[in-house]
Amino acid sequence: MWQIYQFPLCPFSRKVRLLLGEKSVGYDLVRESPWLRRDEFLDMNPAGQTPVVADEEAGIVLMNSMAICEYFEETVEKAPMISGTAANRAEIRRLVAWFNETFHADVVAPMMHERMKKRLVDRVAPDAKVLREAMKAANGHLDYIDYLLAHRRWMGGAVLSLADLAAAAHISVADYLGGIDWRGHEESRQWYAGMKSRPSFRPMLSERMEVITPPDHYDKVDWQ
Amino acid sequence: MWQIYQFPLCPFSRKVRLLLGEKSVGYDLVRESPWLRRDEFLDMNPAGQTPVVADEEAGIVLMNSMAICEYFEETVEKAPMISGTAANRAEIRRLVAWFNETFHADVVAPMMHERMKKRLVDRVAPDAKVLREAMKAANGHLDYIDYLLAHRRWMGGAVLSLADLAAAAHISVADYLGGIDWRGHEESRQWYAGMKSRPSFRPMLSERMEVITPPDHYDKVDWQ
Repeated sequence: MWQIYQFPLCPFSRKVRLLLGEKSVGYDLVRESPWLRRDEFLDMNPAGQTPVVADEEAGIVLMNSMAICEYFEETVEKAPMISGTAANRAEIRRLVAWFNETFHADVVAPMMHERMKKRLVDRVAPDAKVLREAMKAANGHLDYIDYLLAHRRWMGGAVLSLADLAAAAHISVADYLGGIDWRGHEESRQWYAGMKSRPSFRPMLSERMEVITPPDHYDKVDWQ
Repeated sequence: MWQIYQFPLCPFSRKVRLLLGEKSVGYDLVRESPWLRRDEFLDMNPAGQTPVVADEEAGIVLMNSMAICEYFEETVEKAPMISGTAANRAEIRRLVAWFNETFHADVVAPMMHERMKKRLVDRVAPDAKVLREAMKAANGHLDYIDYLLAHRRWMGGAVLSLADLAAAAHISVADYLGGIDWRGHEESRQWYAGMKSRPSFRPMLSERMEVITPPDHYDKVDWQ
């Protein structure tokens, strides 16, 4: 059985869990708080990042969320999530990287630092200016997502792909932390309502990170 | 003909160029300075990052260096660089991400900021403390590379792979900027000497970034 080392608000772990959910691959969760830099975890993954996906019996330890996704895409035929022509696949991978890097750096990382790390670890108040900047950046990103979805059925093209899973993973963490204002983003909202309804996503939406409460609309499939 | 939008010290562009060199795919270089945030470039790649690889006649525009590498790995059979079992391929991709993210953040990004951006754009002196920290981090990374190479023929396993190309690309930029002290890293040095000798790498070592001069050993295949 696969084990995923992760914590509830890790967007990279959420992306991997969505992929495994779509592919019907079972796994157990192991709670890991990478900010504690636990020795045994660093021995397993010198980068110190979640998720790590391991099958101890088979002696396989996978790390780096994109390497993990490519592994399951190659080894599990069901529900291909990087499909189409080579150019389609490049577009899907570009968008996954967009959410992992750009959206993460602009929105998720500052929101997590202010609303999660400062609360759980540093025990100081968040910086309102940083939060405002992150929410402003989120608004710009939703404009871009609206634009993509005005031209395509799904984020990366005609079919559901890893681009949608990556986007939903990162957006869900930002939304949990109160970073997303959905008003004026109807295309994005409708797409995200569809993602929230998926059996791969629903269990994740019911999980909570200790002491941090999401906004009321967070786990609702229909919200304004 | 493919065109690569890049600048001489972009490590991500170097990785793509090494891959195309190994695969004997021809290309023209187009100079792009992403820090100028040129409108036409942002229209092409909203992430504003080099490299972008385009074939205008075919209407293909590729961006994000990993998506680009996967594209050429899928479409050009010669010189496979993400090969072996699914677990081997995951290890190669983990290491590529290690250099793109961890080595880049710890070493290449601060070196480029202090030694390139401050010189070319801000016209102020580099911060000696930041440079010292980056060089110290580089030393720790070379320890890790020594360790990998003590157990494997190449960075990612038994054969040359994209992990070696990514590592050489990032290390070469750090080396150009005077960030690498090779003393005490014999495994890394021998591996890098082999990389420097490759026909895919040699042309790049003769290129220079305006006003920034590399150390004497930078383009030598034999150095101490």
